[in-house]
Amino acid sequence: MPGKKFAVGIDLGGTSVKIGLVDLNGKIVKKLVKKSDSAMGPAAVLRQIKDGVHEITGDKIKISGIGIGAPGTVGIINGTVQDPPNFPGWGTVRIGSIIKKEFKCNVFVENDANAAAIGELIYGAGRQIKNFIMITLGTGVGGGIIIDRKIYRGESGGAGELGHVTIDTLGHQCNCGSIGCIEAYIGNNYLIERVKRLLNERTDSMLYKTIRGDFSLLTPKLIHTAAQAGDDFSQSVVIDTGTKLGYALASVVNVLDITTIILGGGISGFGKLLYSSVESSLIERVMKPFRSRIKIKQAKLRNDAGIKGASALVHYKS
Amino acid sequence: MPGKKFAVGIDLGGTSVKIGLVDLNGKIVKKLVKKSDSAMGPAAVLRQIKDGVHEITGDKIKISGIGIGAPGTVGIINGTVQDPPNFPGWGTVRIGSIIKKEFKCNVFVENDANAAAIGELIYGAGRQIKNFIMITLGTGVGGGIIIDRKIYRGESGGAGELGHVTIDTLGHQCNCGSIGCIEAYIGNNYLIERVKRLLNERTDSMLYKTIRGDFSLLTPKLIHTAAQAGDDFSQSVVIDTGTKLGYALASVVNVLDITTIILGGGISGFGKLLYSSVESSLIERVMKPFRSRIKIKQAKLRNDAGIKGASALVHYKS
Repeated sequence: MPGKKFAVGIDLGGTSVKIGLVDLNGKIVKKLVKKSDSAMGPAAVLRQIKDGVHEITGDKIKISGIGIGAPGTVGIINGTVQDPPNFPGWGTVRIGSIIKKEFKCNVFVENDANAAAIGELIYGAGRQIKNFIMITLGTGVGGGIIIDRKIYRGESGGAGELGHVTIDTLGHQCNCGSIGCIEAYIGNNYLIERVKRLLNERTDSMLYKTIRGDFSLLTPKLIHTAAQAGDDFSQSVVIDTGTKLGYALASVVNVLDITTIILGGGISGFGKLLYSSVESSLIERVMKPFRSRIKIKQAKLRNDAGIKGASALVHYKS
Repeated sequence: MPGKKFAVGIDLGGTSVKIGLVDLNGKIVKKLVKKSDSAMGPAAVLRQIKDGVHEITGDKIKISGIGIGAPGTVGIINGTVQDPPNFPGWGTVRIGSIIKKEFKCNVFVENDANAAAIGELIYGAGRQIKNFIMITLGTGVGGGIIIDRKIYRGESGGAGELGHVTIDTLGHQCNCGSIGCIEAYIGNNYLIERVKRLLNERTDSMLYKTIRGDFSLLTPKLIHTAAQAGDDFSQSVVIDTGTKLGYALASVVNVLDITTIILGGGISGFGKLLYSSVESSLIERVMKPFRSRIKIKQAKLRNDAGIKGASALVHYKS
């Protein structure tokens, strides 16, 4: 691959570390996935990253830079990663400068939700869009805010915690300590718990029959499949999920006056029924002047969005 | 007053038009208040503004510019004001260029909530602050967002509708068409309606006795006075108002990562009990990394905040 330009994207997680060699269009040409050495401390994780980058480039391919998406609090200026969830005993580690020293190229570190937004901005559904709100639906509900084609970070890099916008201040307990956050309704685990409770009353549903009453088998993907196959119970779950997300987004749009929303992550695969539910509840609840401009888009970076988003950091001018 | 620099600030309202000559420190040295000709259409209102500015300057005082704060949708680039509430048959009027032609000076037009935020930025509680959220508590609950000492306007100039952040998506109907907006709980009229309902059960309270059961006498100011005098019912109303506002602000801070809040407008005079309630509920609900940085401040521009905020537009570099 001589002459071609590549970036390395690293999706650093508590379960796995994914490293990809990505071309200028966001296509992954080579990929490594390793079980994360997160339990073994920062030195082991840094070793794992270095070994992985050496392996994937074969120390021959010229790269334009390395991007790293990491969970938790990321110091963007000097590339520090502070106490990421599921990395015990981590503290504050200057990943950026350590990796830069090893490979003598530009290294960019971002929190994973912002990296997902930048991925869509550079390679995905946001390529032609000046301002958008990116929502990543997974175990957590993450957010990234793009204003004038730049990520908006706030005072301390913590902006865009869209999963912790409240829909009911007397509602469900969220594990952030607050009550009624949208994440406490549609985050994967909360969603599955809610579906389990509801399923006890709907043993007639296709979803219940599919899992034969074994709730440990329940996944968002199964709910989606049953909804698509016409199970009215599963469809009502998808509609309720989208409706609640639309309610939360109405508050966000009223604050930001940004009307394009890109949905990514697991549950975003719920498909058209989810999108139309988000759209209709958002339009119903948002202030009148914004209604005609609301656009809900599906993220384009699906598989390996983490690697692609991280590699996009190299092409992103902040 | 030769040699001194002044700006004219105009607070354009459906009830009154207030025009002030304001010095560089935000002090009003001369003021006119007229009943608004809003019912007579745009030409009459423009006449009223022109006459007022001629009168207040005596056509002798050199002014550095004119700032106009107007309700509703304001087009900031060319100074248009579009269908302000309580101005029947208005349409879209290019106030900025019309007034500029008359007085041959810089004219700046902003919506009133943003003008209030800019007023605090230039003359008030925000003079030393880089990022803050301004909340104006009145009939409506208005907001202005200052990022890096600039007003944040969003895609269409509509950002900062903080009164329409939801606290309960199954809660009270708001006159914006949505449900559970914070304005539907703490906007003056909603607040008074709620207090009336509660007072029926609290005929023993000092507040009930003060108005002798005549609910038409109820005002936020009376509630404040009774709370200060030790009426536990009125204190509970103030605490509940602050608590709910804190809940709404938790969502806003989680989105923006801006941790200084300035409260202005009528109810902000509720005093320390209000501020401590806002602060404690916001700190309880906002995400952990933001908690230690939360600061609730009282607006400094109280009387004639509208005139002062409008005049501040002249000194504000956007």
